[in-house]
Amino acid sequence: MSFPLLFDFYELTMAYGYFRAGIHERTAVFDLFYRKGPFEHPYVLFVGLEGVLQGIENFGFGEDEIRYLQSVAPQIRDEQFWDLLRRFRFHGTIYAPEEGTVMFPREPMLRVEGKLFEVQLLETMLLTYVNHQSLIATAAHRMVEAAAGKPVIEMGARRAQGVDAAIDGARAAYIGGVSKTATTEAGRRFGIPITGTMAHSFVLAFHRDVRSPDQAKEAELQAFTAYAEAFPDQCLLVVDTTDVERSGLPNAITVFRKLREKGYEPIGVRIDSGDLAYLSRVCRKALDEAGFPDAQIIASSDLDEFVIRDLLAQGAPIDAFGVGTNLITARSDPALGGVYKLAAIEWEENGERHLSTPIKLSENPTKVTLPGRKNVVRLLKDGQFVGDLIMLEDEEDPKGPLRMIHPEYRWKQKVVTDYEAIRLLRPVYRDGRRLIDKITPDTARQTAAQSLAQLSPEHRRLHMPHEPHVDLSDALYERWMAEIHRRRMEKVQ
Amino acid sequence: MSFPLLFDFYELTMAYGYFRAGIHERTAVFDLFYRKGPFEHPYVLFVGLEGVLQGIENFGFGEDEIRYLQSVAPQIRDEQFWDLLRRFRFHGTIYAPEEGTVMFPREPMLRVEGKLFEVQLLETMLLTYVNHQSLIATAAHRMVEAAAGKPVIEMGARRAQGVDAAIDGARAAYIGGVSKTATTEAGRRFGIPITGTMAHSFVLAFHRDVRSPDQAKEAELQAFTAYAEAFPDQCLLVVDTTDVERSGLPNAITVFRKLREKGYEPIGVRIDSGDLAYLSRVCRKALDEAGFPDAQIIASSDLDEFVIRDLLAQGAPIDAFGVGTNLITARSDPALGGVYKLAAIEWEENGERHLSTPIKLSENPTKVTLPGRKNVVRLLKDGQFVGDLIMLEDEEDPKGPLRMIHPEYRWKQKVVTDYEAIRLLRPVYRDGRRLIDKITPDTARQTAAQSLAQLSPEHRRLHMPHEPHVDLSDALYERWMAEIHRRRMEKVQ
Repeated sequence: MSFPLLFDFYELTMAYGYFRAGIHERTAVFDLFYRKGPFEHPYVLFVGLEGVLQGIENFGFGEDEIRYLQSVAPQIRDEQFWDLLRRFRFHGTIYAPEEGTVMFPREPMLRVEGKLFEVQLLETMLLTYVNHQSLIATAAHRMVEAAAGKPVIEMGARRAQGVDAAIDGARAAYIGGVSKTATTEAGRRFGIPITGTMAHSFVLAFHRDVRSPDQAKEAELQAFTAYAEAFPDQCLLVVDTTDVERSGLPNAITVFRKLREKGYEPIGVRIDSGDLAYLSRVCRKALDEAGFPDAQIIASSDLDEFVIRDLLAQGAPIDAFGVGTNLITARSDPALGGVYKLAAIEWEENGERHLSTPIKLSENPTKVTLPGRKNVVRLLKDGQFVGDLIMLEDEEDPKGPLRMIHPEYRWKQKVVTDYEAIRLLRPVYRDGRRLIDKITPDTARQTAAQSLAQLSPEHRRLHMPHEPHVDLSDALYERWMAEIHRRRMEKVQ
Repeated sequence: MSFPLLFDFYELTMAYGYFRAGIHERTAVFDLFYRKGPFEHPYVLFVGLEGVLQGIENFGFGEDEIRYLQSVAPQIRDEQFWDLLRRFRFHGTIYAPEEGTVMFPREPMLRVEGKLFEVQLLETMLLTYVNHQSLIATAAHRMVEAAAGKPVIEMGARRAQGVDAAIDGARAAYIGGVSKTATTEAGRRFGIPITGTMAHSFVLAFHRDVRSPDQAKEAELQAFTAYAEAFPDQCLLVVDTTDVERSGLPNAITVFRKLREKGYEPIGVRIDSGDLAYLSRVCRKALDEAGFPDAQIIASSDLDEFVIRDLLAQGAPIDAFGVGTNLITARSDPALGGVYKLAAIEWEENGERHLSTPIKLSENPTKVTLPGRKNVVRLLKDGQFVGDLIMLEDEEDPKGPLRMIHPEYRWKQKVVTDYEAIRLLRPVYRDGRRLIDKITPDTARQTAAQSLAQLSPEHRRLHMPHEPHVDLSDALYERWMAEIHRRRMEKVQ
């Protein structure tokens, strides 16, 4: 069996450093969280948990892996350390919200507890899965939001950053709300709905010795006819190979009429270039006049949430949107900056065990971490989100009127009453075994939809959204300030 | 054996459409090319060929795949078609430049010839590999260019768009010129150099019951000491966990002195936050004064080519740059828009076979394709690039004085003489077998370096570079215009 070495090399050198210092088996707590949403969006959909759980099950070291690592780290000669790796199996505990949940900056999305060296070695793998998939799900959500109820179809595999990006990206996009994907393997692997009809090459393949525009039009008609014969009940034709108004559209209508004679109704047409508002109107009018008011118009061509919104604002009669590059790469902001930071570490003194809660001060204030074992409580009132409270795990859930205080702007406060408090992180993996069933894309998609439905339209706005209330419990805030002041060094200039 | 279904579903529906029309086995020629460089860069490094060749060898359909496809395409009931897939093995020919070669917009980077349905089914896979890896190699090249001879280290796995993006991205970055990667699996799989030392968590793990800044400083010293004991000859310390000037740097110097007493010289320090120009100067001065002029300063923290260039322009004494997110996602322009377009298709008439050379007109002029079987000739004069000529494969190489004419601005012309003409595309796969040896990252890296060395600094400039001459041969230009006029329909408004 072969194991991919999904870690940054420094996770190995650190593991060995811990080992040499004799602290590698101390209990450590790491948080995975992000500091700033992508696209200036106030939240992300937490996606990637199923990948994480499968990744942990496949995380290990065979003899091939050990040999390679020994070749690149010849300084490590302790056979005991290599034996530790040979026996590696993650025995810690992972806490996470349900896959698909809306999560805000600073909130732990994973809390990972276990032996220091084990927890350290998982760092990159956890981040890669969660960062990538949460990003794409959130990008998809924004496009679906812009489409205001019209279906959005993911078709970006060819521009994805590698094969995993295409396949896992399609899954994430589905969780974020797209209706279907063009990526066949994502359909096979995850059971999500797939779709596909024809590209321009299908039309051009019928361009037999074309010598005039009339012959080009005739060739397109042949192509459409061939496609309709192959898929009479799934006839969606791409109409912009040469000229939408003068060739593609009239040809499509000709074929649709023949289909109807045979008892089939067409799906519609796809436009992949030109001005989509103008061309969709031209198509709609012609299709309606020809007696095909139910034939759909699918638009694609470098769409993103803002183009979709503008097209609909102009009343473009588009029934579904195909999105490629901008979704599958989250083009306008292609990385979620999730990080993985030590929040607590066990120490022994005179035979007693203590948990320290160190923080990283850093030269950048926004990079200062939050101390301790934490959870997130979502506060709902009449089913609607009123705020989140990041608190210490061992605190009781809040009860009664709660004063929420902005962690930086302390004068920003509000009191919430009559709320329901829901603790978001719960154990999903413990003692070498996952505690939850396999998470299907449909389950996570439903979680996302429910979580999003709790937010107000103000929070979901694409541009300049309302900032949600995410505060720290008093106990956490006090711990945080204490840890800062224990480390802050006086600067004199 | 299981095969990933690395195609968009429409490639399957088109394949069936071709089959039903009886044209699926006609010879077709597709070009893979891009229209506009990423980052407004005038060229890309062509990378991904090794992935393509391995992908083709693994492209097929087992019974599991057929069953899945039958379940999603129940309309396809021809058992003959499914048998075609069961027997699928790509029997066509692929032409490509050497992996690593500089390629310009519109130039075919892959020319794929074979049976129409086979060539169509490869579309997405070819595009995904070439688009992603060429993009990352080009992004890396820009950062390496900005670093002006200082090493650049790739460390972006945690922000990569999935596991493949991390691993194949590290390979592409190495081909583009980075010196090392932090991604262990990329080192193992491709044999490229890896590196790694410590993160802030290593320091925080030693924060035992810290109650004052002095204790925090003491804890950091313990962490550094532990690391130096584990890796005495590889001691690179991250100095910004709490405070560079008051803690990290003095602690590092203390440890470096102890190392020297034991006969070891330190590698240096890493700064990962704050103002890197200021802090690097502070570090340099202190290290020099302490007698460590050879200790290096490594900088990281959201670097890209422009920050690197500006830091060096300000004289920041940084010896190496660690780049993460901005490289591994090509953040400022995260997709290369490569496309795959039909350039020729065989037809039979009265028992004779002809090759048609159709083009896609499209509603966007920039999306008009070039017809025919093409190659690219690179023109060098005294080893330096003077221009590229896209020409028909069956044309002779140019000889003697050559008038190069801009394909759009026809008045832009130049005559080149005494040049060497090098045909870039050569067959790399034929009849089910690759024709070239496995391409190592080092080979492709060398190809890239040689190809880049042919360009002038004006072409390699990061911002507003000089546009290279890439023209069409007269024969190709005439064919192109003829195919356009055969299809252009009169628009009257």
